[in-house]
Amino acid sequence: MQEMRESNRRYAEEFARGDLPSSPRKKLAVLTCMDVRLDVQRMLGLDLGDAHIIRNAGGSLTEDSVRSLLISSLLGTEEVVVIHHTDCRMRDVTEDELRTKAAQKTGAIPPFELGALPDLQQSVRATVAEIDESPWLIFERVWGFVYDVSTGLLDEVVGRKDP
Amino acid sequence: MQEMRESNRRYAEEFARGDLPSSPRKKLAVLTCMDVRLDVQRMLGLDLGDAHIIRNAGGSLTEDSVRSLLISSLLGTEEVVVIHHTDCRMRDVTEDELRTKAAQKTGAIPPFELGALPDLQQSVRATVAEIDESPWLIFERVWGFVYDVSTGLLDEVVGRKDP
Repeated sequence: MQEMRESNRRYAEEFARGDLPSSPRKKLAVLTCMDVRLDVQRMLGLDLGDAHIIRNAGGSLTEDSVRSLLISSLLGTEEVVVIHHTDCRMRDVTEDELRTKAAQKTGAIPPFELGALPDLQQSVRATVAEIDESPWLIFERVWGFVYDVSTGLLDEVVGRKDP
Repeated sequence: MQEMRESNRRYAEEFARGDLPSSPRKKLAVLTCMDVRLDVQRMLGLDLGDAHIIRNAGGSLTEDSVRSLLISSLLGTEEVVVIHHTDCRMRDVTEDELRTKAAQKTGAIPPFELGALPDLQQSVRATVAEIDESPWLIFERVWGFVYDVSTGLLDEVVGRKDP
């Protein structure tokens, strides 16, 4: 923790002061996984102020990410980028296996879904479709990408043919 | 979108190949807001591979962030850092005002809470307490910070007196 406190002090010393607006400059929100190998801003070349970034286990559309995306749209977001990634720990595992592991850790089976994911491209397409179909999410465009954690490359799964 | 595609190509060209483990090297998870002015890795000096990063509107503990934190604990996380920030758009607004804005955007009032937040320090303390008290979240330490979007500085609200 001490290391992080010192990193933050150095960060603040070089911090470009000046008030950035709280609405996303690129009118963009990114929905992606919490995975340790994703540096979302760097992989997309986003600057401070550009986009809302929503992250959970898997990069899934849940009630909470619907809530966050809806709030984002109220702040001016018009486009959403969904990014799932290779070697995700929410894949190649079944819901039952996740529940068993959770029960071993906590002593009981959680009353909520843990969100094991299907095939990678399929989960991107499904998440993009869910956003498109949600009555709470009004956006002009939703894009879907797969991120390769071993190369740093994004592969466009939904939106490739469009401008 | 073309700009982001090109940024990603450049990112991948300089990407240090080599397989990072999917478990957080620092045994750490960060729960924070989706706000456009937060560069979580930079503000904490975190490298690729160090920590899970969970972000939603407000940095709130919801069923989805409980789910993500539980998954994180199954992957070895022992400490959690909660970061809320100054000038958050989920503050200084009531739940009713958020619902009214949502209804103007979507045509109906959402059946879920939008999550307006109370006083800043109070919301950090409450979120840390909720994590501590959740039967699904077994961690050794939970820290709470306020991030100042105009200075880049973190202020420790919970954990200050401890090592």
